[in-house]
Formats: sequence, C-alpha cells, structure tokens
Amino acid sequence: MDAGLQRRVEALLQEADVVPGGTRAQDIDILDPRFHARVLADGSLGLGESYMEGWWRAHSLDGFLTHLLEARLDERVHGSGEVWDALKAKLFNLQSGQGSFEVGKRHYDLGNDLYRAMLGKRLVYSCGYWRHADTLDAAQEAKLDLICRYGVQGVGVTISHEQAVLAREICAGLPVEIRLQDYRALDEPFDAILSVGMFEHVGVKNYRTYFETARRCLGEQGLFLLHSIGTNISRDRTDPWIARYIFPNSMLPSAAQITAAMEGLFVLEDWHNFGTDYDLTLQAWRDNVEAAWDVLDPRYDERFRRMWRFYLAGSMSTFRTRHSQLWQLVLSPRGVPGGYVGVR
Amino acid sequence: MDAGLQRRVEALLQEADVVPGGTRAQDIDILDPRFHARVLADGSLGLGESYMEGWWRAHSLDGFLTHLLEARLDERVHGSGEVWDALKAKLFNLQSGQGSFEVGKRHYDLGNDLYRAMLGKRLVYSCGYWRHADTLDAAQEAKLDLICRYGVQGVGVTISHEQAVLAREICAGLPVEIRLQDYRALDEPFDAILSVGMFEHVGVKNYRTYFETARRCLGEQGLFLLHSIGTNISRDRTDPWIARYIFPNSMLPSAAQITAAMEGLFVLEDWHNFGTDYDLTLQAWRDNVEAAWDVLDPRYDERFRRMWRFYLAGSMSTFRTRHSQLWQLVLSPRGVPGGYVGVR
Repeated sequence: MDAGLQRRVEALLQEADVVPGGTRAQDIDILDPRFHARVLADGSLGLGESYMEGWWRAHSLDGFLTHLLEARLDERVHGSGEVWDALKAKLFNLQSGQGSFEVGKRHYDLGNDLYRAMLGKRLVYSCGYWRHADTLDAAQEAKLDLICRYGVQGVGVTISHEQAVLAREICAGLPVEIRLQDYRALDEPFDAILSVGMFEHVGVKNYRTYFETARRCLGEQGLFLLHSIGTNISRDRTDPWIARYIFPNSMLPSAAQITAAMEGLFVLEDWHNFGTDYDLTLQAWRDNVEAAWDVLDPRYDERFRRMWRFYLAGSMSTFRTRHSQLWQLVLSPRGVPGGYVGVR
Repeated sequence: MDAGLQRRVEALLQEADVVPGGTRAQDIDILDPRFHARVLADGSLGLGESYMEGWWRAHSLDGFLTHLLEARLDERVHGSGEVWDALKAKLFNLQSGQGSFEVGKRHYDLGNDLYRAMLGKRLVYSCGYWRHADTLDAAQEAKLDLICRYGVQGVGVTISHEQAVLAREICAGLPVEIRLQDYRALDEPFDAILSVGMFEHVGVKNYRTYFETARRCLGEQGLFLLHSIGTNISRDRTDPWIARYIFPNSMLPSAAQITAAMEGLFVLEDWHNFGTDYDLTLQAWRDNVEAAWDVLDPRYDERFRRMWRFYLAGSMSTFRTRHSQLWQLVLSPRGVPGGYVGVR
C-alpha cells in the first residue's frame, strides 16, 4: 500500500467534508486499502466498482455521494477509461439497430420480480410527482394524472421483452396494444404521444430522428409529452460506471440538445422541472428493495445488491445536488390555438 | 399598372382566403394600384410601408395579417432588401455600444403621453397575464404578481432617457434606484434579477454576455426571471418592417439560442409559455390608443397612426398564429435546494 495515494484520497475526501472512519452520515469506512489506488486511477468507475467489491462502506451512501458532488469532485477525478468512452460515443451511434435493444436485455429484462418489489403498485419506473403526495403509490398516481387525464385507446412500444410480456398481461382486456419494437419504426397517426423515461436511451445522434418520428405520427392538433431526466451540461455519454453496470448506451439530454433537435418540428408549450421529486422516488425505491432482498431470488447476490444500492444512491445524489433534472415538456406541432395551460 | 402583378398578388391573397374588395373581416380594399408591385418587390416591408402610405385598408387589420401568416405567405414573399439586412446582422454586432441605445431613442423615447394612453394604469409595456383577469389593468397586475410577490429594494436599468425620467417620478419615495445605463455595466450583487420585455433587444451575439452579466450579479441562492417574446425558429434579425419603423436592432430569441447561451451558468427551473395572452394584451392596447388619438399630440399624424396600427395588428397576428411565444423562464445559479415550484 502506498501512503502517498492514501493521503491524496484523504485530502480529496476532506474537501467534501468526509472522514474515513468517521461517524457522521457522510463518512465512510475503507475496508480494503486498494480503494485509494482504484479511485484515483478510475474515477467514478473505480468508486462504484470498489463499492461492489466491498472495499468500502458508508453510513449513508446517498449522503456520502451527495457530499462528493457538492464538492464537485466528480469534475476533478477522471478515470483513464473515459478517453475511450468519449471516442466511442463520438465515433459510433450507440443507439442504432441492435445497439438500441442492448439496454432492454441488460437492464429492463433483469427480472420483473425485482421491479415488482421496488417500483410499487403500478410498476412505474420513472419519477413520481410528490407535490401533493406522501407515498410512492400516490406520487406515481399523481404523475400519471399529470401526464394524461383521459381514457385512451393506445399503443405502447418497448425494447424490453420482459416488459412487453408483463405489460400485455397487465393490459389484458384494455384497448391497449403492446409492441416489442424500436420507436423509429412507428409510422401511423396518433392524437397524443407520451414518452416517459425513455428519451434517456435515445442518444444525441438520434434526437432529430426521435422528434421527426414523433412529429410524423402526431396529428396537427395533437400533443406530445416528453418526460425525461435532463442534465445541466451538454455531453454525449453517461457516467462510465452507469454505462457499464446499469444503463448501457444511455445519456442524459441537456436543454440545449433538446431545443436544437426539436426546432421547426414543435412549439414549446410548457417545460416543467420537478427533479428533486426523483430524489424522493429513489429513496422510496431503495426502501422497498432493501426490505425485499430476503424474499427475492438468490441470483440477486450480495455483489448485485451493492451494485443496485450504488445505482440508486448515486442517482439520488445527482438530483439532490441539482446536477440532474426531471423535465416534462409539452410540445405541439403548430401551437395550441388560444394557448396551452400547463399543470403543476 | 401591370395586370400581371395584380394577378400574382390576387393569387397569393387567395391562398390566404383574402379577397380584395371583399366584405369579410380578413378582406382588404386596395386603394392604390402601386400596392401590387410594392408588395412583390419588398415583402413584409412593402406591405407595411404601403399601409402607412394609405394604399390599402382592412376591415380587421389583425384578422387580415393572421390569414397571411396562417397561409405562410411570409415564408414565400421576401423583399430584396433582406439580403442586406441578413448580411448586416451577420457582420455587425447591432446591439453593441451606442447601437444598444438606438432603440431607446427611436422607440421608447417616442413620448410618454402615447404610452400613458396605451398601456394602462401601471404603464407595463410587456405581456399581461389573462388567465384570471378580464381587463388590461388586472392582467398586468396579475403578471407583476406572477413575477414577484415580495417587497424589494431595487435597481432599475433602462437605455431610454424618457423611461428613466418617468420611472424616477413614479418611484419617488420608494427604495428604487433608476439608472440610464447599459445592462452590461452592472457589476454588483442582487438577490433576484427580473428582466421583462428587454431580452428582445439584446441580440444573439450578446446572449452569452447577457447571461454572464446576470450570473455575475446574482447570489448563489438567487433567482433570475427572464420574460421575453420568443420565436419557433432561430434567426439573427427581426422582420425588416419592424426593424425599420418600430424596434431597430431587435430580434426574437429561439429556445435553442437561449438554452445554448445559458448552459453552465444557470439551472432551468421553469419555462412558462403564455404567448396567446400577448394577443389579448395587444388588442387592449389597440383599443386604448385608438380611443385616444383625438386627444393625443398632433405630431402623431395619420401616417404615424397607420404605422402604429400595423405594428400592433402585426404583433397580434404572430401570437395568434403561434409563430411568436411569450416565455417566462425561472433560472437559478445552482438549482434551488429541494426544487422550485413554478406558478401558473
């Protein structure tokens, strides 16, 4: 073990008011001295992987990660792998063809038992709306109400086989068709389009195609609701740990990327930000899943649980520090005559 | 007179369902046959100038112009002067140095008697908020309430000498300082910044400087409210008639231009669009000013009145057809902890 590495890591942690071995919520215990070298070499990827290995633990994982982001350590400690990630995102369209199905297999097909335990009654895997709600189920009900207050005949599109199977089961008897299909294949008219927690997988190289597809499938008097996590700064890829373990080929849009891609196709009717509600939603998911590990399938082993914990806590911290946003945009092809009144 | 020109104009008008000599609201009477050549040669500039000359009249000027925009004739009939306008906007920063004061002298210094007659009790020269209001004064009161619900000690900045004089008179005894100053000269801390109906004069080449100035003058916990007319498509200059007769050096921002310019400086907390309220506001201004011409100074002669009528009616038509928007953005330097709740 290199005492110099340890000192460098401790100095960085001190900037975030974190003390190894300390007893406050944000403090951590370092259980394996390889932690220092790994974090300095690999940045956020090394932080997450060493957590999965059990090399460190936190009193409050989300509290610790929030302190790191508030001190902006994420902007200063970069891993060597990021150069390759950056190049890859520039050179390839990661969300084209079969690439777009990878996240379906890797993440959304993990197991509906896990999602049933975590997501609450309606299995909504996106941000709830907590303004007038106290529980996860109420917050998801309020969010669905925010999105759509009418009965529909509808088509649902997913690239996750497991999602499609379960959605067909849940929607049995309803005038809803579920398709296992790339959204780009859609070419038929709809009165309204709702895209909820999906844009994060589209990729900036496909944003124009995404909006063109929505425009092509929407009547002149239609409305398009886009519900997506957003980020303050334009980038073309996600965090390397998230890319490797949670959402391959995902990336968060910036406001500049969204508005550039939709220009000339839609009128911006409303832009609602309730990003801090995602912190609350993730806390509820964490509580649900932590309470359920013992009854869940043993294939979710200890390493998987640590991975999942890091994913949820890391996400909480990005919303709590306002690095990430939850945006709900309402768009119309030519402007709603007389104006659109947003709901809050 | 060239019968071919007349036929071409009549064919264009027919696309907009307008009949010269017709009796419906959108129909017009052509009083001087030079109208046809002028409009074909000079597009919107020729349309406005020939109206000022009295070469044509409308039953409902805003109704007629709305029909033209709905038929998208504005995209097809361009004047020859626009090449020079485009080049000028690309080559020069029209809103730098003394250029930024030009609109103050040319438009806002026209005469406070005119603005008193037109704008209602509080002299608010921007869009009212009509959602819960029936009169112009109530709509402006509601808009001010939307912007700010607290008492302030404040500084007001204007590049119009007449505005500054009147504002100082109105604010006598209040803790408000009025400065005749370019906004870029501001360099002192404020808790909140409100920019209402001013961004339309900033110019895209100065957007980054504008947001940097706001960021520099705002505390970490502050809020920045930007209230501006917006447009669906990115451009770097305004309509040539508007530029020549109403707002020199003005231009409307697109969402893409705004978001690109503010990236990294602000978190987007809320984006409210109430553009059709500007149609109602302009109608109220029109009614006020039409009722007041007889008691206003005779320097507002018949030609001026036609110019003013064309300005108000043309503006109504751009909001009614949803070509223009009224955007109210709430921005914060680092994100409001716990989230910001927008008001509607």
